[in-house]
Amino acid sequence: MMNYPAPIQEMISLLKTFPGLGPRSAERMTLWFLGRGETRSHQLEVALQGLWERVGKCDRCGFYLDKEQPCHFCDDAARNHELLCVVEQPSDVLRIENSRAYRGLYHVLGGVLSPLDNIGPEELRMDFLVERVKNERVQEVIVALAGGVEGESTSHFLADLLSQEKVVVSRLAQGMPAGGGLEHVDEITLHHALQGRRNISN
Amino acid sequence: MMNYPAPIQEMISLLKTFPGLGPRSAERMTLWFLGRGETRSHQLEVALQGLWERVGKCDRCGFYLDKEQPCHFCDDAARNHELLCVVEQPSDVLRIENSRAYRGLYHVLGGVLSPLDNIGPEELRMDFLVERVKNERVQEVIVALAGGVEGESTSHFLADLLSQEKVVVSRLAQGMPAGGGLEHVDEITLHHALQGRRNISN
Repeated sequence: MMNYPAPIQEMISLLKTFPGLGPRSAERMTLWFLGRGETRSHQLEVALQGLWERVGKCDRCGFYLDKEQPCHFCDDAARNHELLCVVEQPSDVLRIENSRAYRGLYHVLGGVLSPLDNIGPEELRMDFLVERVKNERVQEVIVALAGGVEGESTSHFLADLLSQEKVVVSRLAQGMPAGGGLEHVDEITLHHALQGRRNISN
Repeated sequence: MMNYPAPIQEMISLLKTFPGLGPRSAERMTLWFLGRGETRSHQLEVALQGLWERVGKCDRCGFYLDKEQPCHFCDDAARNHELLCVVEQPSDVLRIENSRAYRGLYHVLGGVLSPLDNIGPEELRMDFLVERVKNERVQEVIVALAGGVEGESTSHFLADLLSQEKVVVSRLAQGMPAGGGLEHVDEITLHHALQGRRNISN
């Protein structure tokens, strides 16, 4: 097979290892870089440097922070410190935050239990969750993990883990997504939606 | 809206301007970078440097070349120098090459005529195509532009442009794609496939 000159191939190979980039999009992006020249390359280097030098993670909640600033959540006295929402990833924090339905604190687990991938409780921030529940003024732990086998079993594991502590452990309601018709929803979601139906009669 | 710390937002904003990256994939890639640390960043810088420093374009065919090496096509005496295939983009050269159905030379136009985008003959490598036809041993010019209004009109424009020269101007056959059933093909393709039908009776 004829191919591009080596430096182009090297760039394509590298980009293919990036998330969400297949061979075609890696090729497209490489040729786009070639066309745009060094300006883009320089912008990218500056932005990457910014990532390494200025971004850290809060020791407590696990969300990203600007190293020069306090944590947006943990250091905000106006938030409800009696509510603690457990999520898998830092990006989940933003999703919940932007729903505007929650003003408590967060705890990023860093993943879910996955025996096949050798991810046990030690690989996640679980002991530290228990510690926070013991030492902070938490009244309710809201487990906001994704559905699916691993999320489910992690949720139950957390409920067990916290059963000795004086906190309510809750989980997100399961049901129909907003604006979604019956035809767009899988059977399990529909099952949950039916089981969790709410009375709307006057 | 709550958002990520500024350096993360800056990276996401930059990546969103890259081809094929929407807001979600830009976010995903940025967080992935954060997780991978500086190793990936360094690899990316090296690969980008390789692009700028080592890759050029052949003055003649317009395909990419390693600056330290001759053109893979133009400087290959074993290829048929009487055939010249006109394509829009450098990446089209690889597509044709990898069909293994062609062993002639190439001419990258750099685009197609597009009055709405102010791309006229002067913006493309058209005069130079005529020059090549005059000065090289070209016998046939194969116009291999994409279908669609702009590709079609550019093909006809090239045919006119070369009508004074002693060359055959041909274009790629149009018809059904390999392995594609009738249900996957649009009406215009089917129209071409019917018009260009071939006798297979014994």
